[in-house]
Amino acid sequence: MNRTVEELMEALKEFIPEDRVTNNQTILEQHSKDESYHTPSLPDIVVFPTTTEEVSKVMKIANQYKVPVVPFGRGSSLEGHVIPYDHGITIDFSLMDKVLEVRENDFLVKVQPGVTRSQLNKELKKYGLFFSVDPGADATLGGMAATNASGTTSVKYGVMRDQVRDLEVVLADGTVIHTGNLAAKSSSGYHLNGLFVGSEGTLGCITELTLRVYGIPEYILAARASFPSIHDAVKAVVSILQAGIPIARVELVDEHSIKQVNKYSETNYKERPTLFLEFHGNEAGLKQDVEFMKEIVAEHNCESIEYESDHAARNRLWEARHNLAYAYVHGYPGKKLMVTDVCLPISELAGAIEHARSALNSLGLTGGILGHVGDGNFHALLMINMNDLDEIKRADQLNETIVMYALERGGTCTGEHGVGVGKQKYLEKEHGKALHVMEKIKQALDPHMILNPNKMIKMKEK
Amino acid sequence: MNRTVEELMEALKEFIPEDRVTNNQTILEQHSKDESYHTPSLPDIVVFPTTTEEVSKVMKIANQYKVPVVPFGRGSSLEGHVIPYDHGITIDFSLMDKVLEVRENDFLVKVQPGVTRSQLNKELKKYGLFFSVDPGADATLGGMAATNASGTTSVKYGVMRDQVRDLEVVLADGTVIHTGNLAAKSSSGYHLNGLFVGSEGTLGCITELTLRVYGIPEYILAARASFPSIHDAVKAVVSILQAGIPIARVELVDEHSIKQVNKYSETNYKERPTLFLEFHGNEAGLKQDVEFMKEIVAEHNCESIEYESDHAARNRLWEARHNLAYAYVHGYPGKKLMVTDVCLPISELAGAIEHARSALNSLGLTGGILGHVGDGNFHALLMINMNDLDEIKRADQLNETIVMYALERGGTCTGEHGVGVGKQKYLEKEHGKALHVMEKIKQALDPHMILNPNKMIKMKEK
Repeated sequence: MNRTVEELMEALKEFIPEDRVTNNQTILEQHSKDESYHTPSLPDIVVFPTTTEEVSKVMKIANQYKVPVVPFGRGSSLEGHVIPYDHGITIDFSLMDKVLEVRENDFLVKVQPGVTRSQLNKELKKYGLFFSVDPGADATLGGMAATNASGTTSVKYGVMRDQVRDLEVVLADGTVIHTGNLAAKSSSGYHLNGLFVGSEGTLGCITELTLRVYGIPEYILAARASFPSIHDAVKAVVSILQAGIPIARVELVDEHSIKQVNKYSETNYKERPTLFLEFHGNEAGLKQDVEFMKEIVAEHNCESIEYESDHAARNRLWEARHNLAYAYVHGYPGKKLMVTDVCLPISELAGAIEHARSALNSLGLTGGILGHVGDGNFHALLMINMNDLDEIKRADQLNETIVMYALERGGTCTGEHGVGVGKQKYLEKEHGKALHVMEKIKQALDPHMILNPNKMIKMKEK
Repeated sequence: MNRTVEELMEALKEFIPEDRVTNNQTILEQHSKDESYHTPSLPDIVVFPTTTEEVSKVMKIANQYKVPVVPFGRGSSLEGHVIPYDHGITIDFSLMDKVLEVRENDFLVKVQPGVTRSQLNKELKKYGLFFSVDPGADATLGGMAATNASGTTSVKYGVMRDQVRDLEVVLADGTVIHTGNLAAKSSSGYHLNGLFVGSEGTLGCITELTLRVYGIPEYILAARASFPSIHDAVKAVVSILQAGIPIARVELVDEHSIKQVNKYSETNYKERPTLFLEFHGNEAGLKQDVEFMKEIVAEHNCESIEYESDHAARNRLWEARHNLAYAYVHGYPGKKLMVTDVCLPISELAGAIEHARSALNSLGLTGGILGHVGDGNFHALLMINMNDLDEIKRADQLNETIVMYALERGGTCTGEHGVGVGKQKYLEKEHGKALHVMEKIKQALDPHMILNPNKMIKMKEK
């Protein structure tokens, strides 16, 4: 950095009011970490813009003086995405939190990047609409677009990338662009929506999002089915999908994790490998589907299945599932969360989960396995003592063995959490020469490498 | 070009057998045009590779000598995409036409780029599967990926980009990359699948595709509903979508086009604005949906509605719809086809179609309007006498007024046909400064600008 922090603060205060440009220690610390085990690192300055114009001016200054910039939503990332290892300016988007427009006839909503998922759904409910992507954490929509988040509902509605019609993005040099439009489809030019979604703040700062939303389904049915083994549970899901039954959610929770849920959520679910399922549709259609599904799960040794069509009971079920990560975090005070995140073709999923469970056990680690099994995506949730170097090493080993198993079978090292710093070491193995294409794109759009530098793509400055 | 055509032919024949490298006049002419009104232009050489390795070697030579390369599928593009205005080498993929693998448990298929849509569906039928994208023409899958094709089924299943899990691509310098993997979702690196799909051969040559396929639905119901006006028909579609009824196809055909269909397909459909609909699901669910739909269309003055659940009757209905473009071409011998292709947010669709019809009439042009109305995409199909300069000028005027109307309302100049040379003039208006981002990407990945040069992105060589 060519300027001192003080000089930079002064330059920023020329167009951002003083109370929204800070190097207060507490605030720097709040922006030094995410929800993962990755080592914290302080930014030099945190700014809280309220307009796109302010963000553009911050980027112009940063570009001029080659100062790193990290966009920050809620800090709920899981691979160190928002940790400013190169220091510089963190842009906190929490004041840009307005739902700007609901176009109910077009099933579209325009929001600022600091709007959270639950805030958006509260607003949409008035219109009989909902936003489908549900990663568990109450992340901001800007953050969810930056990591291409998904979660429990993507088996039916798709991932974050599928919901984005348009982004307003501030580029490295402060230029403001729109990546898309309001039409349901387009073949006009390169697909910038898709490129910027999942780019983890390395290509630009998202300052506005136009997102697809859905009508709240006429009828929703949830179910909980327990099985003697993970293998049976996964095979049941494959058969349900093959039968063409339109599942809206299907989550696998292993025995160890069900115990954790029961402890934390005060439920008394059967402590067996369990599928949490949800179906959206009309009543007549779902009744026919459910009859068919009963036959299918029975063929896969299902031990018990319970249905909940009532709203409150469904909410309890999904809350228990959502609280799982927190159940682990609270259950192991002092330990840190490490989550693996591979995704494979579904025919490889049962084998991959069995391989992960056996590796987890043989490495003597503590944790559970849960998965968005309709997508072929599962997580091993590990609680690590960060003072125990050997435990950290074994956790890294587990991560690596799980990733290698997936990559050898056509999978990906990260289904939904993103690369950040935690998955960088696997990118060359996963993408081969395509990684150089990504590097060329990064270099073309951020030549001074100031945008979330050395996250996802590692490169040397020109 | 630094080498003569003869020298280049010799260089290519060093690794491609002589009978697959040609400058035979008839073959050059076959590769000088697409199905549109755009002026033909001859390539210097046509090669017919059979392997990725051959394609890579062609690109290495082309890159070394800065020779333009145009990838060619079936030539069914509608905006001049495959016309080699800068001459050079056309790579015809018709010999790379193998279905390489069907992974039925993963709902995936791996194909070579020269496989056509109908060829793939014939193969998939054996497994109870189908490929959803249906642009009407029996295009190659490589070509459909290059233009991000869609068509009648995207309202339910999505466009070509939504089906692509992985592409093998030969880059400008001959490097072979894979843009994705076999997993249903990934947050690993920049979304190269999305970038290369719709890039119209300007970033690389697609040599292999892994595509998502679907189970053939348990129950399919088709319907044909006629309305007193286009306005009523479009409003009915908006209401059906808002009611959450899961339509698999919904096509609008105007009065003029229905007449053309009746003439060409020997049907006797009522000559009124008509919706062709299709629903996929289970029997009980669809019966409930159809009852609901009847009420909705009645509210929008539907004059008559007829259902076909029988396979043969459904096929007749969709054949008639698909034959529409050919019905025009055959109905106006000597004239050429110009098709507009805007897509708008659906709330703007009725107004846009009325505007288009009235402009078409007042410009004294001959043509019909049809639309993939569930997506907000419609076409004005014009038959032009290419010897009548005034008629060409009026057709251009119509295209422009339709595009401007769409762009002013958040739409796009091309919903599914792509940019080619026909839509280039609208890109700056549509994308603003984002067009420079596209130019930077093109420059980074094809610095000598040899890949389908001056299509979509116009730029000067470095």
